[in-house]
Amino acid sequence: MRKQIQLLFLILIFGTIPFQAQTEVRTDINIPDIPGYKTLKCDFHMHTVFSDGNVWPTIRTIEAWREGLDAIAITDHIEYLPHKKDINIDFNRSYEIANSESEKHQVTVIKGGEITRRMPPGHLNGIFLNDVSKLKTEKWEDAVKAAYDQGAFIFWNHPGWKGQQKDGVSKWYDEHSMILENGWLHGIEVVNEREYYPEVHQWCLDRNLTMMSNSDIHDPTNMFYEIHKGDHRPVTLVFAMDNTETSIKEALFDRRTVVYAEDFLVGREMFLKPIFEKSIKISETEFELTGNSTKHIQIKNCSDIDYKLVLEDTNEFVSVPEEIILYGNKIVLFWIKAKKDDIFESQKIKINYKVENLKVKPNEGLPVILEFDITKKK
Amino acid sequence: MRKQIQLLFLILIFGTIPFQAQTEVRTDINIPDIPGYKTLKCDFHMHTVFSDGNVWPTIRTIEAWREGLDAIAITDHIEYLPHKKDINIDFNRSYEIANSESEKHQVTVIKGGEITRRMPPGHLNGIFLNDVSKLKTEKWEDAVKAAYDQGAFIFWNHPGWKGQQKDGVSKWYDEHSMILENGWLHGIEVVNEREYYPEVHQWCLDRNLTMMSNSDIHDPTNMFYEIHKGDHRPVTLVFAMDNTETSIKEALFDRRTVVYAEDFLVGREMFLKPIFEKSIKISETEFELTGNSTKHIQIKNCSDIDYKLVLEDTNEFVSVPEEIILYGNKIVLFWIKAKKDDIFESQKIKINYKVENLKVKPNEGLPVILEFDITKKK
Amino acid sequence: MRKQIQLLFLILIFGTIPFQAQTEVRTDINIPDIPGYKTLKCDFHMHTVFSDGNVWPTIRTIEAWREGLDAIAITDHIEYLPHKKDINIDFNRSYEIANSESEKHQVTVIKGGEITRRMPPGHLNGIFLNDVSKLKTEKWEDAVKAAYDQGAFIFWNHPGWKGQQKDGVSKWYDEHSMILENGWLHGIEVVNEREYYPEVHQWCLDRNLTMMSNSDIHDPTNMFYEIHKGDHRPVTLVFAMDNTETSIKEALFDRRTVVYAEDFLVGREMFLKPIFEKSIKISETEFELTGNSTKHIQIKNCSDIDYKLVLEDTNEFVSVPEEIILYGNKIVLFWIKAKKDDIFESQKIKINYKVENLKVKPNEGLPVILEFDITKKK
Amino acid sequence: MRKQIQLLFLILIFGTIPFQAQTEVRTDINIPDIPGYKTLKCDFHMHTVFSDGNVWPTIRTIEAWREGLDAIAITDHIEYLPHKKDINIDFNRSYEIANSESEKHQVTVIKGGEITRRMPPGHLNGIFLNDVSKLKTEKWEDAVKAAYDQGAFIFWNHPGWKGQQKDGVSKWYDEHSMILENGWLHGIEVVNEREYYPEVHQWCLDRNLTMMSNSDIHDPTNMFYEIHKGDHRPVTLVFAMDNTETSIKEALFDRRTVVYAEDFLVGREMFLKPIFEKSIKISETEFELTGNSTKHIQIKNCSDIDYKLVLEDTNEFVSVPEEIILYGNKIVLFWIKAKKDDIFESQKIKINYKVENLKVKPNEGLPVILEFDITKKK
Repeated sequence: MRKQIQLLFLILIFGTIPFQAQTEVRTDINIPDIPGYKTLKCDFHMHTVFSDGNVWPTIRTIEAWREGLDAIAITDHIEYLPHKKDINIDFNRSYEIANSESEKHQVTVIKGGEITRRMPPGHLNGIFLNDVSKLKTEKWEDAVKAAYDQGAFIFWNHPGWKGQQKDGVSKWYDEHSMILENGWLHGIEVVNEREYYPEVHQWCLDRNLTMMSNSDIHDPTNMFYEIHKGDHRPVTLVFAMDNTETSIKEALFDRRTVVYAEDFLVGREMFLKPIFEKSIKISETEFELTGNSTKHIQIKNCSDIDYKLVLEDTNEFVSVPEEIILYGNKIVLFWIKAKKDDIFESQKIKINYKVENLKVKPNEGLPVILEFDITKKK
Repeated sequence: MRKQIQLLFLILIFGTIPFQAQTEVRTDINIPDIPGYKTLKCDFHMHTVFSDGNVWPTIRTIEAWREGLDAIAITDHIEYLPHKKDINIDFNRSYEIANSESEKHQVTVIKGGEITRRMPPGHLNGIFLNDVSKLKTEKWEDAVKAAYDQGAFIFWNHPGWKGQQKDGVSKWYDEHSMILENGWLHGIEVVNEREYYPEVHQWCLDRNLTMMSNSDIHDPTNMFYEIHKGDHRPVTLVFAMDNTETSIKEALFDRRTVVYAEDFLVGREMFLKPIFEKSIKISETEFELTGNSTKHIQIKNCSDIDYKLVLEDTNEFVSVPEEIILYGNKIVLFWIKAKKDDIFESQKIKINYKVENLKVKPNEGLPVILEFDITKKK
Repeated sequence: MRKQIQLLFLILIFGTIPFQAQTEVRTDINIPDIPGYKTLKCDFHMHTVFSDGNVWPTIRTIEAWREGLDAIAITDHIEYLPHKKDINIDFNRSYEIANSESEKHQVTVIKGGEITRRMPPGHLNGIFLNDVSKLKTEKWEDAVKAAYDQGAFIFWNHPGWKGQQKDGVSKWYDEHSMILENGWLHGIEVVNEREYYPEVHQWCLDRNLTMMSNSDIHDPTNMFYEIHKGDHRPVTLVFAMDNTETSIKEALFDRRTVVYAEDFLVGREMFLKPIFEKSIKISETEFELTGNSTKHIQIKNCSDIDYKLVLEDTNEFVSVPEEIILYGNKIVLFWIKAKKDDIFESQKIKINYKVENLKVKPNEGLPVILEFDITKKK
Repeated sequence: MRKQIQLLFLILIFGTIPFQAQTEVRTDINIPDIPGYKTLKCDFHMHTVFSDGNVWPTIRTIEAWREGLDAIAITDHIEYLPHKKDINIDFNRSYEIANSESEKHQVTVIKGGEITRRMPPGHLNGIFLNDVSKLKTEKWEDAVKAAYDQGAFIFWNHPGWKGQQKDGVSKWYDEHSMILENGWLHGIEVVNEREYYPEVHQWCLDRNLTMMSNSDIHDPTNMFYEIHKGDHRPVTLVFAMDNTETSIKEALFDRRTVVYAEDFLVGREMFLKPIFEKSIKISETEFELTGNSTKHIQIKNCSDIDYKLVLEDTNEFVSVPEEIILYGNKIVLFWIKAKKDDIFESQKIKINYKVENLKVKPNEGLPVILEFDITKKK
C-alpha cells in the first residue's frame, strides 16, 4: 500500500503512469513447530453467501492465506439459508468455489457443513465430508449420523453462545451424552469468535475431546478483526505431519490441537510446553561481583505471542523479577541480584514461573523453569 | 476490539463471561463543509456478488458507513456476470439489498449499473436509475440511451485502465464525442481505484465535465485498502445542500465535486480554496526584537489531509520556510525571521505558497496566501 | 516523517536534494472545555539532568508542546543529585533553561522542586516557587515551610511507591496530619507514572485535597510512553480561566482538577459530568414500527477517551444495550427495541448508565443519563 | 505498554496493585549476516549534553540497544560547547558515562570526538580515540593529526549539509585532497540524519573510501524518528567477525560497510548481493497446463527491508511481473504465465530484475536473478 501511494504521488508530480504490481501479501503467524510435528494454523468454522455469510467463497481462501493460515473448513449452515431467494442452493458448492483458490494459495480447504438446530444439541460442525447435502435431514440425530457415516470429524459449536444460552454458561445435556456415547462427538469449540468458555475447556480435559478455536466468521474477516493493526481471528493450532487433509484429519482425531485466541493459548501441557521452549532463547552476562552482584539476562521471543510470566517461588540465592513479559518478536532485558555475597557455589539455578496466558486448565497457567548460570565470576 | 481483548482477558483470569457490546463503529472523514454546501463523501462505483464482486450487497452499505462515507452507488456490470450459475440475476436486486441497510446506517444508496463494453467506448456508469434491466441491450448506444432516458447521471469509467489501454494512457475516441454531443456524458473518472489519469483531469477542465473519484471495489474494501492503518478508498467529494439523492444528483449535474485520493485533492479552485481555508487556523506570537527578530507561527489543520506548501516568492522583509507540511489533525510550528531590523512598518504581510497536493490542473498546485502580522513589538 | 521518507526516495531516484522543512508538530489532547473554564492539560512533576533526569531541560518544554500539554512544572530533586560531579548545581537553573522555550511553544513553565526525604513524609513537590534553593534545609519540616513561605502549591508525591512502601499500599502518617494542619499540604498524586492509588483517591475526597496526576518522568517521555502509537503520559486536567501561571495556581488551590491516566478519568462529579456531556452528540433515526420496532442511535464522541458505559437499570418499554463503548473520535451505532407494540405514549425515555472508566469514587463510575425520543412513528 | 494499561484497568476495577515489571525491550533489526561475517548495526555519530546534545550519555546506549543496534560511537563536538556554563567539560566524560551501560545492554560503545570547523574542511569525526582532549588544538590540521596519531578511524561528516553548503551540494576542496593524501581520511558520511549525498556516494566508489550512515542525533532518537511506528535512524551496517571494538575497527578500515537509511541500502555489490540472497526464499507451485498455463510463486522476505524489483528484460517463454515488491517480513505471491503452450523444454529460466532501492551506484539498482523451474507438468 505504502508503495502505491508513492507511485500516485510520482504520477501527480511527474505525469507518468507506473505499472501495477500484481501481487498479494501474506503475514505469517509465528508460532514454532514442535518436535515431530508442524504447527498448522487452522480455522474450521466459517460461512459464505451460500448460507448467511456475506462473502463469495473464494474470499475465505484468500483471506486465510493473507492472514497466515494453512487450512480452513467451509461450513455453511444446512438449515439456515436466508439468501436462498437469490442463490441457488447446492450444499457442496461453496466448498468447490473456495477450493478453486486452494492450489494458488497453498491453503488446504476442507469440505464441511453446520448442522443448525435448537439447543439441545445446538449447532454441530461436520468436516471432511464427501457430500454435505446428506446432512439435510428432518431429525438432527440423522444429520449427525450422516456426517459420522462419511467419516467426518464432528464438533459442537459455541456451547455458551448467548443466542442459545441466555446466561452465557455452557450446559451439557443428555443429548450430548448420547452423541458422545455413539462416537459421534470428537471435539468442542473452547473458543468461538471472541468468546472463551472455561467450562468447555474443562469438559475437553475430562472427556478427552479435541479443543477447537474457530472464527465462525460471516463478514469479511477484516471487518471484524483489525488485522492490519495486529489483531487476529481465533485459530486452532494443529500438530500434524504435513499440510494435507489426511494429516490434519488424523491430528484432529488424535486431539493434537491448541486453542490460539487473542493473546492466549489454551491446551494440553504436552503441546504448550514445547511451543514455549522453542519460542525463547536466553543469553546471559556474567555476574558483576562488585556493587550489587547483578547479572543481566536477555530473552528473545521468536513467536508472535507475549508470554506473561509470574514468579512461583522466591529463590534463596538470588532475587528475580516477580513478573516478566516476554513480548512477541522482541528481546527482553532484566536482571537478577545475589542476595548474599558468598553463594555462588552451584553452577545453575532453576526458577519456577507460570505463564499466565498459556492455560493448561481454566484457572492454571503453564509451569515453566528458567535456568540461569550463577557461577562465580573470576 | 481492544476492549473485547480485555474482556477475554478478564474471563480467563476471573472465569466470568461479559456481555457482548452490540455496536458498530464509524470513523468520520474530516474535510470541512464549504460556504453554502455540505461536503459529502461519496463513492459511485462498486460491485457485489450479483456481478463479479465478492461481497453481499449489505456489506457495501456497512463498509461505507464505517469508513465515513455519506453516499454510495451500487453499479454491478450489466454484461459481465461470472456468478450467474449460482446467482439468480435480477439487475435491480443488488441495489435493493444494499439499500435495506440504508436507513439504519444513514447512508444514501443510489441505484446504478455499469455498461461494460470494449473500448471504444469502454465502460460507463449510469446512476440514479429506475430500472437497471433496461440497460441490457445489444448495442452499447442503446444502453447509454436507456440510462439517459431514465434521467441518469452518466460517467465514463477508468479511461486509462490497462485492461483497455495497454500503455495506460487515456484516449478520446469519436464515440466519446458522439456521446458528449448527445448530452449522454456528464462526468469521467479522474481517479479509479489507485490510478489517476492526468489527461482526464485536463479533459474535465476543457469540456466542463464532472470529475469523479471512485473505488470500483470488488473485494471487501479492507482487503484492498489498509483502512485500520489510515489508508482510504478514493472518494468523490460532493458539495450538496444535504444528504439526499435529489441534492446529490443536482450537485453532480452541476459539477460540484472534488477528487479525494490518497493524500491528494484534485478539482476546481472554487472548491479547493474554501476547503483549505476552512481547514486551517493560524495563531502567532509577537516578534521578539532581541536577537534574531524571530516570530513563531502555529497552524492547526482540522482536516485529515496533509497540506504540502511550497513557497512561491521570497519576501523582502522576512524569511519564511521554503516548505511547510500542515499535517492533518495536527498543529505545526515554524518561525519567520526579519531580514532587517527596521522594517516593521506595515502591519501585515502576505506570503504566496502553492499547495502541491491540491491540484487545480494536472501540474499545478492551489495558490494560497498566508497572512502574518509583523507589527513592531513595543 | 512519512513525507521526508518520500523526499529521500525522490533524491535517490532523481538525484536532487529537497529543502528541509523546519517545523515541529503537536498532537492536541481532545478533552472539551467545561462551562466557565478552559480544560488545561498539565504535568506538574518531572526531572532533568540537573537532578537524576536524563534530558536537558529544554526537552521537557518541547516534549510537552508536542504531546498536547499546556503547562508543566520542572521539579528536580533538592537532595538527590547524582550528576553533581559533572553539572554545576543551581536549583533554579533547570527551570530557567526549560522556560527559554516557553514563549516559542506557548507552554507555561512553572518553577518547582522536589523535597526528597524518607517516608514519612516521603517526597513532596512545591511548585510556583521563587527560589528553589531555599528548600535545601537540614530538616524536612523547614524545607516544606520554605516552600509554603513562598506561596507554593505543595503536594505529596506517589504515596504508594514501592520504593517507600514495600506492599504498594499508601499509608497516612502523623507527619502528614501535621503538614495538613499547618496548611502546608494542598494536593496528593492519585496517579504517578503508571500507578494509581485508590486509597489516595479516597483521601482526596475525605480531606478535600487537590487530585494530581503526573508523569514523574526522568527519561525522554517517548522512551517510557509509546506516544507515536497513541499512548500518553498521565495528565492533570486543570479547569482554569486561561493558560497563565496565575490562573493555574488559583485553579489548583481551588481543587479544580481531574486525573487523566491511560483511558481513565478520576475526579469529582462536578467536573466529570460536563466533560462527558460536552464530548458526545446523539443522533437518532425514527422508530421502525414494522417488524422488530427498532430504532437506531448514533453517538459521536469528540474526545480522545473511550467511554465505557454499563447499563444500570433495565427499562420497561425498550431494551437497550447492556454495555456501550463510545470510542474516542468515533461514532458508535447501536439500536434499541420496543418491548411492546403499544407503548409509544411518552415522548422521551431516560436510560441510566454508569461510565465505568470515569471514577467519582475508587469503585464507582460516573452516573449518566442517555435520553432518547420514542415518539410513535406516524 | 499494552499490558500495563490492562493492569491499571484491573486496579481500577478490583482495587489491587500489581507488581511492576522491571524490564526493558529491544526490537532487533532483521538484516541477515553474510558469508564469513556478522552484520552489525552501528551508528558512529551522536551527541550528548556534554556538547550540544540534549540527553545524558547513558540514554545513547539504552536507545541503541532498544533500537536493535550493536555498536555506537559517542562523538561530542570539541569546539562547540553551548552547555559549558552548566557542565564541567571533560572531553572523555560522555564516553565514560555512556560506556557504563555497555555491559548491561551488550552494546559496544566507542570513544570519539567531532572536529567542528568551517568548510573547508568542515566537520570530521575521529573514533576509537584514547584521549579526546588531544583533539582540542588551534589549527584543524593538528586536530586531525592528533586523531590519526591515536590510530583513529577518521571520516568527513555531512559534506552536503546546508549549514555549510547553501545549495546542499557536497564539494571536494583541496583541503580534503591533502587529508586524503596524508592517510588521514578513511570514510565519508553518504547519509547523515535524513540526508543522502549522491555525489559522496560516487566519491567513495572513486576514491575507495568507507561509506558511513549516521544519525548525528542531538535529541532523544524518538523525538526525531517515529520508532514505535517502524521508522528508524540511519545505520551503518558493518560486516565484522564479531561484536568487539577490534573487529569493528578492522572492518571499517577494510571498507566493509553498507549504508542503511529509511528503506534503502547503499553500498558495494559484494555486500548487497548476499544480503538480498540470504533474505529471500522462493517456493513454487507446478505449472497448471490447463487454461492459462500459470504457475504461482511465493517469495518470503526475512529481512525488514521492502525490496523493490523492476524487470530488466522480457523473457521469451513466460510473462512475469514488471514490478515486484518483496515486503519485509512478509510473503509475496505472484504468477508467471507461459507465452506458448509448447515451450517447457528447459528446466530452469533466469529472469533479470534490478532492486531499485539497493543502490550500487547513485543511479543504479542491484542486479539480481530470480530462477524458476518451468519443467512441464506431467
